[in-house]
Amino acid sequence: MSSGVDYRAFYRDRRVMITGGLGFIGSTVAHQLVELGARVLIVDSLIPEYGGNLFNIAGIEDRVRVNIADVRQSSSMNYLVRNQEVIFNLAGQVSHIDSMQDPYTDLEINCRSQLSILEACRRYNPTVKVVFAGTRQVYGRPESLPVTEQHLVKPTDVNGINKAAGEYYHLVYNEVFGVRACSLRLTNVYGPRQLIKHNRQGFIAWFIRLALEDHEIQIYGDGTQLRDFVFVDDAADAFLRAGADDSSNGKVFNVGGLEPISHRDLVELLVSVAGTGRYRCVDWPPEKKAIDIGDFYTDSSLIHRTLGWRPVTLLGSGLARTLDYYRAHLDHYVPTTASQVAAL
Amino acid sequence: MSSGVDYRAFYRDRRVMITGGLGFIGSTVAHQLVELGARVLIVDSLIPEYGGNLFNIAGIEDRVRVNIADVRQSSSMNYLVRNQEVIFNLAGQVSHIDSMQDPYTDLEINCRSQLSILEACRRYNPTVKVVFAGTRQVYGRPESLPVTEQHLVKPTDVNGINKAAGEYYHLVYNEVFGVRACSLRLTNVYGPRQLIKHNRQGFIAWFIRLALEDHEIQIYGDGTQLRDFVFVDDAADAFLRAGADDSSNGKVFNVGGLEPISHRDLVELLVSVAGTGRYRCVDWPPEKKAIDIGDFYTDSSLIHRTLGWRPVTLLGSGLARTLDYYRAHLDHYVPTTASQVAAL
Repeated sequence: MSSGVDYRAFYRDRRVMITGGLGFIGSTVAHQLVELGARVLIVDSLIPEYGGNLFNIAGIEDRVRVNIADVRQSSSMNYLVRNQEVIFNLAGQVSHIDSMQDPYTDLEINCRSQLSILEACRRYNPTVKVVFAGTRQVYGRPESLPVTEQHLVKPTDVNGINKAAGEYYHLVYNEVFGVRACSLRLTNVYGPRQLIKHNRQGFIAWFIRLALEDHEIQIYGDGTQLRDFVFVDDAADAFLRAGADDSSNGKVFNVGGLEPISHRDLVELLVSVAGTGRYRCVDWPPEKKAIDIGDFYTDSSLIHRTLGWRPVTLLGSGLARTLDYYRAHLDHYVPTTASQVAAL
Repeated sequence: MSSGVDYRAFYRDRRVMITGGLGFIGSTVAHQLVELGARVLIVDSLIPEYGGNLFNIAGIEDRVRVNIADVRQSSSMNYLVRNQEVIFNLAGQVSHIDSMQDPYTDLEINCRSQLSILEACRRYNPTVKVVFAGTRQVYGRPESLPVTEQHLVKPTDVNGINKAAGEYYHLVYNEVFGVRACSLRLTNVYGPRQLIKHNRQGFIAWFIRLALEDHEIQIYGDGTQLRDFVFVDDAADAFLRAGADDSSNGKVFNVGGLEPISHRDLVELLVSVAGTGRYRCVDWPPEKKAIDIGDFYTDSSLIHRTLGWRPVTLLGSGLARTLDYYRAHLDHYVPTTASQVAAL
């Protein structure tokens, strides 16, 4: 199909599987797909410390199928991929810090699991289209800004390496086995339904929680480092476009925000929109400084030219919607009893 | 130390471990190290279908220690790395074709094993220097020639992806944990002691066997595609230089041949030097065409500038030495009895 025109209509009655579909971005994709009339199968392991949360599909739980399974488990994948037309492949471990403490688990979840899914497709559903959730982490410390897809892949942590390998597998299966696949290299995604029960899955979600609870936000260094942020609804829209359009096959695309903003300006905006919280600049903890990448923002013009996607949500608006969501549903995202805290 | 001057003297009495040390390149490094007076520990799994061969250390077997162990096995690695001063890390699965048939085994051998070694170093010997055997495969189909280290990493098969991940792990452990490490991206290495009992580990070794046995060599396509070849003694010298010189830390280096040559010219030279064998151009087998990369040759000027290395062996001379070696020792490299054939 041609770029960007009918991609929403494409999903009516379409059989779509979402790995990691109870997570932050996966569940947002599920909400959009249900609205478009797709037949959605959510696959999620619900591993406690990761991002899966049954509340993320509140409101659509009767219009999706949920299958609890671990994507590392080949026989489950071999069964589940059959007859699917599109797979949005978002299952993964996203903590940089965890990957440096336990690189083997990160290897299993971010490499072996991708081979399980792709081998299942190759053997039992070679005509499916797979859209992989890649990450800007694969670039590491940028050598030039904004970062395009031509920038060298130089991850600075084990998680980034394994995510790069997972992405490359998709491209090789596309080329060699004809399993149509592409990857979206997401920058910092924020919005409703993100894990905020601990601080190991991205700093913006944690900052949002601290602001909500009227705590102090600590900014490392002087807060001048730049990042771009993309609202989760915009990121989900990139997945829908990529899944519907064969011009994405075999390609990687940056999916970034409208414009870069400094950490300090981000936090000031957040505190201002929230009306609660405050911030202070502190010295870098050495173990975080060791894997920090300095300024980073992407050029997303390739996906705009190829698939018609661009971010549309202003940061202030996205933050306001995020804060509203968590204020309404905080008890589903933050442990409130001793037993829930102990379970973490 | 400064580049290239005393690197050979550096190894006198030095404790050096070589993973994959019974293989083609690893054993050549061992021979050179023994000559320089190093205390060499060879670690090899001797998995039958891979390149390890006890005959490869004939002549030095009393001057090295050999420990049979699988580098995937963490507890063995945790013990073996202790007190080593340099590790030449050459253990790996090198077959492109095998990796596409069984990607999980390739993942274990080329990713998990590297984490085992690096975690062992991080925890039990953080001051060691590690030199990793990388590969030109990580570049995939070149976008420009000659290929420099600034070329994008775009592997075309699972083996190339996993070797890229293994390399990136070394760079991250260098940066984050201070385990000094670098990678040599080897092009097509040829010479004595290479596995020639089957054709799944690089075409040049197989061509050499066919010429030796006076068989027909099949060249895919018209034979005009270019490659560069590096003689194994030259490649081993690059390892020695990288291991002795801290200016290599955290870096990747191409290790390529003197100049590119076409497949057809290579085979004509081989047949001419051998005085046996012949060749014919045939159509590409589709499964090989799917992972072929076209012309490929590297720019090795970075390692020349940094470590003083350059290839010195002319192709005709290297081929002659290789043919002489196999003529003298063919029974140690090619199965000659029914039981040996059955064991393959």
